[in-house]
Amino acid sequence: MLASTAAMAAESCRAPVPHGPVQAAVPVYTMGPVGWVRKADGRTWIEIDKRYQPALLGVDALQSIWVLYWFDRNDTPERRAILQVHPRRNPENPLRGVFATRAPVRPNLIALSPVRVLSVRENVIEIDSIDAFPGTPVLDLKP
Amino acid sequence: MLASTAAMAAESCRAPVPHGPVQAAVPVYTMGPVGWVRKADGRTWIEIDKRYQPALLGVDALQSIWVLYWFDRNDTPERRAILQVHPRRNPENPLRGVFATRAPVRPNLIALSPVRVLSVRENVIEIDSIDAFPGTPVLDLKP
Repeated sequence: MLASTAAMAAESCRAPVPHGPVQAAVPVYTMGPVGWVRKADGRTWIEIDKRYQPALLGVDALQSIWVLYWFDRNDTPERRAILQVHPRRNPENPLRGVFATRAPVRPNLIALSPVRVLSVRENVIEIDSIDAFPGTPVLDLKP
Repeated sequence: MLASTAAMAAESCRAPVPHGPVQAAVPVYTMGPVGWVRKADGRTWIEIDKRYQPALLGVDALQSIWVLYWFDRNDTPERRAILQVHPRRNPENPLRGVFATRAPVRPNLIALSPVRVLSVRENVIEIDSIDAFPGTPVLDLKP
């Protein structure tokens, strides 16, 4: 019986770990953007993918939310392998592990920012501000 | 020239989006566990994968950290398609969008909890407690 293309694709997404008696397969978790950071004319908003608009029900009642987004500009194997940094890119700051910093290079490129909710209209959440480039993919919102 | 297995695997990880004039390809972001939640004898700790131990430098100086982890038990297409829930699984609570709740079903299954750091020894961070099953994969730590 032939495996479906989708099944093969899913199978290929398991990390290509060398087989051996000691090393276990490392799982891979996949995510897609649920929206994007937008900025124009001094305003900042999150445009939620229309598919996910039902997930916004009740967000308008919240004063603030956590925005989880992806440092997509650093999504290279080299940058994701960086485990220690000089905080704020200042070589005079002593080296710190990325888990002790908010550096935008880390094994899993998740960013976390609290924002104020100004309004929610259809699939658009206007917020006060966020330290992310326009076009940055948003992964999740939480109260 | 033949593509390498790794290159083919990476290619297969692009979402299998139907081709067409209107629909753009949806990017896929991949993550792996950097550690796991452990619980035994009334103690709770995070075991960091030895590969990532250098990323802990300085965590011992923090009183508390954010733990980002993956709701791995809900990682099915069906559960990730749930966009509205009755909070706390109580049908008397009115439906809310998952972005307005902390529900463990959401498009991207990221969980976020603040924890107190009790100690850091080698690749083990002892913490006060966390509302996650033992064995839960940890994605990131942040101050």
